[in-house]
Amino acid sequence: MAGRVIRKIGRADAAVIDGLAAAGVATVHEAQGRIGLLGSRLRPIYAGARIAGSAITISAPPGDNWMLHVAIEQLRSGDILVLAPTSPCEDGYFGDLLATSAMARGCRGLVIDAGVRDVADLSRMGFPVWSKAVFAQGTIKATLGSVNVPIVCAGAAIEAGDVIVADDDGVCVVRRADAAAVLKAAQMREANEEAKRQRLAAGELGLDIYDMRGKLEAMGLRYE
Amino acid sequence: MAGRVIRKIGRADAAVIDGLAAAGVATVHEAQGRIGLLGSRLRPIYAGARIAGSAITISAPPGDNWMLHVAIEQLRSGDILVLAPTSPCEDGYFGDLLATSAMARGCRGLVIDAGVRDVADLSRMGFPVWSKAVFAQGTIKATLGSVNVPIVCAGAAIEAGDVIVADDDGVCVVRRADAAAVLKAAQMREANEEAKRQRLAAGELGLDIYDMRGKLEAMGLRYE
Amino acid sequence: MAGRVIRKIGRADAAVIDGLAAAGVATVHEAQGRIGLLGSRLRPIYAGARIAGSAITISAPPGDNWMLHVAIEQLRSGDILVLAPTSPCEDGYFGDLLATSAMARGCRGLVIDAGVRDVADLSRMGFPVWSKAVFAQGTIKATLGSVNVPIVCAGAAIEAGDVIVADDDGVCVVRRADAAAVLKAAQMREANEEAKRQRLAAGELGLDIYDMRGKLEAMGLRYE
Amino acid sequence: MAGRVIRKIGRADAAVIDGLAAAGVATVHEAQGRIGLLGSRLRPIYAGARIAGSAITISAPPGDNWMLHVAIEQLRSGDILVLAPTSPCEDGYFGDLLATSAMARGCRGLVIDAGVRDVADLSRMGFPVWSKAVFAQGTIKATLGSVNVPIVCAGAAIEAGDVIVADDDGVCVVRRADAAAVLKAAQMREANEEAKRQRLAAGELGLDIYDMRGKLEAMGLRYE
Amino acid sequence: MAGRVIRKIGRADAAVIDGLAAAGVATVHEAQGRIGLLGSRLRPIYAGARIAGSAITISAPPGDNWMLHVAIEQLRSGDILVLAPTSPCEDGYFGDLLATSAMARGCRGLVIDAGVRDVADLSRMGFPVWSKAVFAQGTIKATLGSVNVPIVCAGAAIEAGDVIVADDDGVCVVRRADAAAVLKAAQMREANEEAKRQRLAAGELGLDIYDMRGKLEAMGLRYE
Amino acid sequence: MAGRVIRKIGRADAAVIDGLAAAGVATVHEAQGRIGLLGSRLRPIYAGARIAGSAITISAPPGDNWMLHVAIEQLRSGDILVLAPTSPCEDGYFGDLLATSAMARGCRGLVIDAGVRDVADLSRMGFPVWSKAVFAQGTIKATLGSVNVPIVCAGAAIEAGDVIVADDDGVCVVRRADAAAVLKAAQMREANEEAKRQRLAAGELGLDIYDMRGKLEAMGLRYE
Repeated sequence: MAGRVIRKIGRADAAVIDGLAAAGVATVHEAQGRIGLLGSRLRPIYAGARIAGSAITISAPPGDNWMLHVAIEQLRSGDILVLAPTSPCEDGYFGDLLATSAMARGCRGLVIDAGVRDVADLSRMGFPVWSKAVFAQGTIKATLGSVNVPIVCAGAAIEAGDVIVADDDGVCVVRRADAAAVLKAAQMREANEEAKRQRLAAGELGLDIYDMRGKLEAMGLRYE
Repeated sequence: MAGRVIRKIGRADAAVIDGLAAAGVATVHEAQGRIGLLGSRLRPIYAGARIAGSAITISAPPGDNWMLHVAIEQLRSGDILVLAPTSPCEDGYFGDLLATSAMARGCRGLVIDAGVRDVADLSRMGFPVWSKAVFAQGTIKATLGSVNVPIVCAGAAIEAGDVIVADDDGVCVVRRADAAAVLKAAQMREANEEAKRQRLAAGELGLDIYDMRGKLEAMGLRYE
Repeated sequence: MAGRVIRKIGRADAAVIDGLAAAGVATVHEAQGRIGLLGSRLRPIYAGARIAGSAITISAPPGDNWMLHVAIEQLRSGDILVLAPTSPCEDGYFGDLLATSAMARGCRGLVIDAGVRDVADLSRMGFPVWSKAVFAQGTIKATLGSVNVPIVCAGAAIEAGDVIVADDDGVCVVRRADAAAVLKAAQMREANEEAKRQRLAAGELGLDIYDMRGKLEAMGLRYE
Repeated sequence: MAGRVIRKIGRADAAVIDGLAAAGVATVHEAQGRIGLLGSRLRPIYAGARIAGSAITISAPPGDNWMLHVAIEQLRSGDILVLAPTSPCEDGYFGDLLATSAMARGCRGLVIDAGVRDVADLSRMGFPVWSKAVFAQGTIKATLGSVNVPIVCAGAAIEAGDVIVADDDGVCVVRRADAAAVLKAAQMREANEEAKRQRLAAGELGLDIYDMRGKLEAMGLRYE
Repeated sequence: MAGRVIRKIGRADAAVIDGLAAAGVATVHEAQGRIGLLGSRLRPIYAGARIAGSAITISAPPGDNWMLHVAIEQLRSGDILVLAPTSPCEDGYFGDLLATSAMARGCRGLVIDAGVRDVADLSRMGFPVWSKAVFAQGTIKATLGSVNVPIVCAGAAIEAGDVIVADDDGVCVVRRADAAAVLKAAQMREANEEAKRQRLAAGELGLDIYDMRGKLEAMGLRYE
Repeated sequence: MAGRVIRKIGRADAAVIDGLAAAGVATVHEAQGRIGLLGSRLRPIYAGARIAGSAITISAPPGDNWMLHVAIEQLRSGDILVLAPTSPCEDGYFGDLLATSAMARGCRGLVIDAGVRDVADLSRMGFPVWSKAVFAQGTIKATLGSVNVPIVCAGAAIEAGDVIVADDDGVCVVRRADAAAVLKAAQMREANEEAKRQRLAAGELGLDIYDMRGKLEAMGLRYE
């Protein structure tokens, strides 16, 4: 079943993708109904990156990074590599050479439910990675996987062309078809939050702003 | 049994609390007899923060952050929010809006045996958090918990008004009644350590400073 | 069986050791045939350090750091302390006083399959540590261990005098007798990589540089 | 997005499903190309059960088992309940009362990436469960989830009506449309294995049966 | 602060304790408002045991089982030993000799947030243990802990004389003062459950028995 | 460096090996000075097995079980297969076919710091396995490893021909050269324990048998 490379995938509108990056993971996740988060075991290799892009998905055997080379050819500017191993693995699939190649193709980053290495170089290069582990363990090139097939990465189902949003809070996937609507919802949420932020900063309480006191009392909250 | 908010709690002396912050977690923990540490799974969202404050305790259902709004009203300047979920959970109970509100009330930070989100914003705002996870997963507001009741957070029993000390080494709790005595012991320990630090920096060995050679030999240590 | 201190150990050539530091963990690990990595649970307490040195090995009981004092006397300039507890433990065996003492002896860092504390101080002092945990939990001095005996640390067998290489990617051990050969292989690898890096940066694909297309086709890779 | 119940789902042929149960997880997984396994964290509450059935999928909030009641109404004889929480949770969603109800509807078992309780009763009743945890922690009924929507359970994407196979080796999903073909492949595999089993039991070596010696030598294997 | 042995502790009524054992962990936990569970990492060394008894609490250093000998003298018939290490540890604190001694004093079992060994012997002897690990690693007798002081064991605060209930679902603590009331609530719950069990076994749905359909519809559940 | 098979290894005396099996893991571990345990993550697939044998060591790539076929040819009656992957892996390297082959060669069991499958069959066949995981995930045969080279398995250094002892408490390694001496020490320990067991069973306290009261008092133990 492995050994497939889907060349032609759809992508969301570039402006929508950039808008989702600006909104960030927490807001996008809320805006689409609290779905789409990848597991919290995926952590950024350095703080401060915030990206969004179209997923080039990779299903790879444990300890075998051959398909990354195949996937890099499929990258277009603005894409993000997303790799899920076919069984749990923390080997270092990706380092500075692959990052050099991916950056030359316009790749914005890597999301990988496995390990990464050369993280000092990657940080210096400004190539962000969200990974399960930092581990120098090398990989081989012996077995086929697939590129741009549906995968499950860190517990989230992802299809090629879905929008990946990643920042210090983790990683979120937005279905390609939903991207524009989610962006709109995210922007409304942000506008709404800004007003609340100012009231909260001025000392008003969420209990009052959100009108929670009556409901809490009805539920039986007792002040002692 | 849930649904209680204790309004009136005792707090340790402000100068004592600030002294404990200056001493830091490792020293305070030693000074009180190697007790009071919260589990090492609680890590700071950014390096370099060192705080102490009075605990406003929160017992909250998994995935439900309603009680944080209730707790914020109970904050006084210099307090620290301490949240323990009633079953293991890594959802993101807390983000930049709640932090804005808590800071407006003088809150010094959050200790949470669960997840937190908006960590880039929180870092920018200088609001320190020690958490089990960084996870954008949203929470609901449907079930009551309690505020200022005794809790167990990351393996440590904590009562409202106990002093929480937190820095890059983790988090420690000091019983409110013991705070002054622990501070005194911590300061003695620091003075004592400073003298040793200078001798060690000059190249003297701990084996000699602490007079260990005889005891090691008696225990049977063999040099080969 | 515990209670031994081996005073006299061999060390690799200083220039070789420094060369291995310059090559870094990922390259050294590849150069010696993808062996020698310590488990990925060992993480640096701050980013950016890259060191190599001769291992002073320590086998220590859980929660007992007495042997660190014994080991420090055995340090020569350029050495690295490597501690393995005799059963799993995350207590904080090491803090700023021991670091002061170790630095006074020329120690380059600590690798420990347990906990460390005073990490803000250690970072300020520029004393790098790779550890399993950051945990302020104190230790006792009651039971003997051994120094400079063979140990297993985070899954890797290490003998006193072996070369330890550590950076942001983790920790690797090189047998003392292999150090010069591994350095040579690492330097050849680096030279080779530099040429490839430039080609990749110019947009050439790994598929072409490494001549993979034929083999992938033979294995059955299908483009759709 | 939550709050949906799909009433009408397709199911594979009953004889095919029973054939897959007879083949077992390891064989089915191999027969379909080494895909479809759920994570190894799902373990049976008692040894010896081997089942297959059509998935009734449940997406449920953390700590909220309301949707199990909704799902039980959708069960037909031969089905298996498959629950994935929307964020990681180990609460005990399911116990002997729900099992009584599910068994009355012909349910063959439960697969849950969370906790289960009353395991002594469930074992006595012969109701098998594969779960991430055994934990008595109770749940609430306050928030909607969905039934028979696509889910990701323990890392595997599952749709309602897919065939679930579970035994002491874990849990595997077979796409409904592939079930008949996978069964055929599994049965061929079993026939093939039986012949090999007899030769191996008679002392022949896999090295000879599978004709590996030449390839190993070509790869460079050295006997010393 | 360590080094205390409290000789005189209160205990709940023997009949109440035995009633709680009969009710089991899941029911007791529900009956007291879903509190009191110890973490799910505590698992029984063999299936089928169900006990309750008064807690003899032990706070012990990591890797040091001296206080178990001290605690055994404090046992009365019907008691349960409950050990929490002062820092995380999985060493085997307890084996068949200590079990022989504890059984001679009428001890009903051991709950330990650490390791245990000789589990085949313990199973044969019918001495149940709930532990974090099975690990043959030996311990020393060098440092004081305390007996019958308040402890936190696997995340639950426990005082000497509190009632411990343990079965295949895990371990629960009931405050001594609440034991009689919790038993009454547990028995009412069981009576109530029995009636429901019969209706569910007859094929009635929880949706109808608990009258959930209206509320689900009001929340927005959609059948498709 | 991989790709080596050492054909000729030493083995301990058969009677010594069987004596160590009879003593069991906990006793052997104590008798040799509390060393040699493999990590507690290795658990038996069924309860009640107790074996000892000479280690046939296997270093295998992640997800590649080719070397097991090579290793089986090296088995003599009474040997135990011991496999360590070169990076962390939980794939199912071993199932009923390999067990059939190994049993035909007189193999007593498998110790593997990875996964195993067909555990129901293996249990039925009486072929014991101690593994890190039960996982049906298949492996490939593409890359060389080595047989009978020194390995580190679950944190313990093991050489071919070392004696492996395994039972419900876990797994322990005894250096081949130490086997006879360790057996003698184990048997003395057992004799000594039997006398103590009888005194403890009669109600005598360890505090008295081991004469601990004075030392505890001297350390400062206070009865209250």
